[in-house]
Amino acid sequence: MLKLDLSKTLGMVSDEELQNLKPMAELALSNLTEKKGAGSEFTGWTRLPEDYDKEEYERILKASEKIKSNSDALVVIGIGGSYLGAKAAVEMLTHSFLNSVKHTHRPGCEIYFLGQNMSSDYLHDFLEAIEGKDISVNVISKSGTTTEPAIAFRIMKKYMEDKYGREKARERIFATTDEHKGALKTLADGEGYETFVVPDDIGGRYSVLTAVGLLPMACAGIDIDEVMDGAGKAMEEYLNADFSSNDCMKYAAARNILTRKGKDIEILVSYEPSLVYFAEWWKQLYGESEGKGGKGIFPASVNFSTDLHSMGQFIQDGKRNLFETVLSVEKARRDFRIEEDEKNLDGLNFLKGMTMNEINRNAMKGTLIAHNDGGVPNIIIETDEINPENFGRLVYFFELACGISAYILGVNPFDQPGVEDYKKNMFALLGKPGYEELRKELTEKLK
Amino acid sequence: MLKLDLSKTLGMVSDEELQNLKPMAELALSNLTEKKGAGSEFTGWTRLPEDYDKEEYERILKASEKIKSNSDALVVIGIGGSYLGAKAAVEMLTHSFLNSVKHTHRPGCEIYFLGQNMSSDYLHDFLEAIEGKDISVNVISKSGTTTEPAIAFRIMKKYMEDKYGREKARERIFATTDEHKGALKTLADGEGYETFVVPDDIGGRYSVLTAVGLLPMACAGIDIDEVMDGAGKAMEEYLNADFSSNDCMKYAAARNILTRKGKDIEILVSYEPSLVYFAEWWKQLYGESEGKGGKGIFPASVNFSTDLHSMGQFIQDGKRNLFETVLSVEKARRDFRIEEDEKNLDGLNFLKGMTMNEINRNAMKGTLIAHNDGGVPNIIIETDEINPENFGRLVYFFELACGISAYILGVNPFDQPGVEDYKKNMFALLGKPGYEELRKELTEKLK
Repeated sequence: MLKLDLSKTLGMVSDEELQNLKPMAELALSNLTEKKGAGSEFTGWTRLPEDYDKEEYERILKASEKIKSNSDALVVIGIGGSYLGAKAAVEMLTHSFLNSVKHTHRPGCEIYFLGQNMSSDYLHDFLEAIEGKDISVNVISKSGTTTEPAIAFRIMKKYMEDKYGREKARERIFATTDEHKGALKTLADGEGYETFVVPDDIGGRYSVLTAVGLLPMACAGIDIDEVMDGAGKAMEEYLNADFSSNDCMKYAAARNILTRKGKDIEILVSYEPSLVYFAEWWKQLYGESEGKGGKGIFPASVNFSTDLHSMGQFIQDGKRNLFETVLSVEKARRDFRIEEDEKNLDGLNFLKGMTMNEINRNAMKGTLIAHNDGGVPNIIIETDEINPENFGRLVYFFELACGISAYILGVNPFDQPGVEDYKKNMFALLGKPGYEELRKELTEKLK
Repeated sequence: MLKLDLSKTLGMVSDEELQNLKPMAELALSNLTEKKGAGSEFTGWTRLPEDYDKEEYERILKASEKIKSNSDALVVIGIGGSYLGAKAAVEMLTHSFLNSVKHTHRPGCEIYFLGQNMSSDYLHDFLEAIEGKDISVNVISKSGTTTEPAIAFRIMKKYMEDKYGREKARERIFATTDEHKGALKTLADGEGYETFVVPDDIGGRYSVLTAVGLLPMACAGIDIDEVMDGAGKAMEEYLNADFSSNDCMKYAAARNILTRKGKDIEILVSYEPSLVYFAEWWKQLYGESEGKGGKGIFPASVNFSTDLHSMGQFIQDGKRNLFETVLSVEKARRDFRIEEDEKNLDGLNFLKGMTMNEINRNAMKGTLIAHNDGGVPNIIIETDEINPENFGRLVYFFELACGISAYILGVNPFDQPGVEDYKKNMFALLGKPGYEELRKELTEKLK
C-alpha cells in the first residue's frame, strides 16, 4: 500500500490551497484518461496494467526462462527510458552485489548494462567483466538508431557471432523495438531474433511496465506478475478515487503549490541504498516531463543517511528554495539486531536489542523534524516494504501523478524536444551526411 | 594539467565582473593560507601535499602491501568525508567492475564500503558478498561514535574475531582516527590495531589526501605517490599564481557571479561513468561548505551522455536557474575504434574508423553549444586524462576553490552545524540517555 502524508509541509500546502487546485487536478486526470490533453497519443500507459498484450507477456516469461537456463549474464543495451526503469527495478528488487555475489544468492542472471554511455573505458572494463561467461543480449531501442545503444549493439552483435557463431548467436539476442518499422526491427527480422514491442502510445520514460522493463526484470529473477499486479491495484485506486482520497492528484497539486511559492527544487529522499536508481528513474520522469519552456521543478535525489553526511547541511540550512519528497519504507526485508558490547567504548549499548531498521526509521523521523525546523516542507509517501508489488504501485503512482502535475503546470508531459538538440549538434560535429551546414556553424561557435 | 575555460558562460561572467571580484578572491586566498578567516583552525589541507607525516605515509604503503598480500577484499567503514573521497578515487582510478571482474584485471584488492548507511538489507547482502573471502577492515572515524560507522564496526569486529580469532583479527583491522583521543583511538590502542591519523586541522570533506583516503586507495592498487604529486603541483600553482592566471580564484569568482544573477543550481557534468562518485565528493565539498545561513548554490551532478537522456531535457529547456561546470577529459585510457558494417542498417557507418572517445568528445562539444543556445552558462574545466596525478590535482583545485568561494560568499567553509540536528533528534527518538526532554518534544511533533 501507498499513503501520502502532507502534514509535514509546514502549512505551505493548506487544505484551502488543495481545494483551490482540485478542479485543475480533476480536469488534468480526466484529460489524461480521455485523451483530451497535450500529447494524448502517448497515454497508453494509463491503462497498461490491464490493457497489455497477454501473448507477448507469456513470451517474455518464456524468454526469461530460456535466458536464465543458458546464460550467466544478460546484457541489457539501452539508454534513457530504455535503461533507467530496468536498472531501478534490478537495484531495488535483487541483490545489492548482484554481479559479484555467489550465484546461489541470486534468483536470476547477472545483469550488465551497456549502451547507456559512450565511454570506451567502460566498454573495455565491461568486456573484461563478462570474460568466460555465457551471455544473452537484450537490445532495447524504439528506432534502432539512437547513437549510444546502436554503437553498443553493433559491437555486441559481432561479439556474440564471434563467440557463438551466427546461428547460435541469434538464439541469444532479443530485440525490444517498434512493432513494425525501424532499423532494429528490420535487422531483428532479418536475423531472426525474437522481438518484443515498444508500444507506439507509450513514451520511453513511461515504458518500464512494457517489455522494455519486464524482460530484464524477469531475467534478474523478479516476479513480474507481482509487479503488474501492484500497478493494476494502483490503477484501480487512482483512476477512480475522488480528489479527497486520491493521493496521486494530491501529490501533483502539492508540488505545484510548493513551486509556486519559490520551492524550485524537489529532492526525492530514500533511506535504502537499493532505491538510488529508483530516484534516477523518477528524475527522468519528472525532469523530462515538466522541464520545458522555462518551466519545471528541478528534480534531485539523496539517499539517507549516507547523504545526510554530504547534502544534509545544505538541506538543513542552505538556500531555502527546496522541498523534500520522502519515500518511506516501513519494514526491512531482513533485519539485524544490535548486540550488547561488554566494554561499550563506542557508547552504542543504548541500542542493544533494537534492529538496524528501527534505528534507520528513527533517523528518518529525526531528520524529518530537523528539516522541518530548518524550514523545509516535507511530502511523505509511505509504503510497507520493498517488493515487486510495491515497485509496480510506485511506478504507476509516480507516472500518473506526473501526467496530472504537468497538465496543472501547463506543459505537454509526453514530448522531449530539448533532447534532440545535442544529438543534432553531435551528428554535425561527427560529420554525418546531411548536417554540413550546421557543422560549419558549430565549428565557428567552438573557436 | 587543468585548464579553466570561461568562454562559454554567455557573457554572464565578464572580464569586468571578474576584475571587480579580484580583490575579494585575493583576500579570500590570503585569509586561507595565513589562517585569518573563519574556521582557520581547519585549513591544514592547504599545505598538506608538502606538509604531511612522511613516517605515517610509509606505514600506509606498508600496510597496503600487507593487506593486498593476505586479503581478497578490504572493507572500508566510514561515512561522509570518511567515505566519499576514497569511493571517488576507487571508482575513478580502478576497474568499472572492480569487485566482480577476475582478479588478474585488478591491481589491488576488492573494495567494499560499509557504515555509510543503516540499511539492514544492505548489511545482509554485504555479508553474503564477502562469504569465503579473506578480508581486512579499515575503520575510519575521527571520534569513533558516529552512529553509522560505529554500528558497522561493532558488527565487523565481532565478525573478524569469529572468523580469524581475536589475535589474528587484530592483524587485519586498521583504524584511521584521532591521534590522541576518542572512542575508536582507545579501542584501537586497547586491541593493538595499527592506527592512522585524521589530523585535527583538516575537516572530513577536506581529508581525502590524508590516511582517510590514502590507505583505501593504496589497497585498491592506486599509485598514491602520483596522487600526492598531482596535488603538490596544483598547490604550487594555485597558491602562487596571480589572479589573472589563477584558475582556482577565477572558478570561485565565476560561480559567485553566476549565483548572484539567479543561477541557484550548479550541475557538475562529466562524460565518464567513472566520475560519478567524484561528483558526489564534489557535492559534499561545496554543499556542506557553502550551504548555510540560508545561502549557497545547490550542487547537483549529471553523467552524460547517460543523463542527457533523463536530465537533458530540463537542462536544455526547463527553468533557467542553473549553470553547468563541465569536467572535460581529453583522452580515454583505452580507446575503441568503430568498424564498418556491411549492411549499415543502424546508419552508423559514417562513424567508421572513429574512436568511441572521439564520438564521446563530440557529444560533449555538441551538448555545450546546445545548452548555451538554451541559455545555460557553462564553465569548463579541462584535463588531459583520468589518472592518479590528475585526481590529486582536481582534489586540490576544488578544495582550494571551495575555500575561496565560501569566503567570497561570506560563510565559514569549515563547519557543518546543520549536520548535528538530525543526529540529536535521532538519539532522542532512540532513547539515548540524556535526551529525555527532547524525546518528549519530538514525540509530540510526530503525532
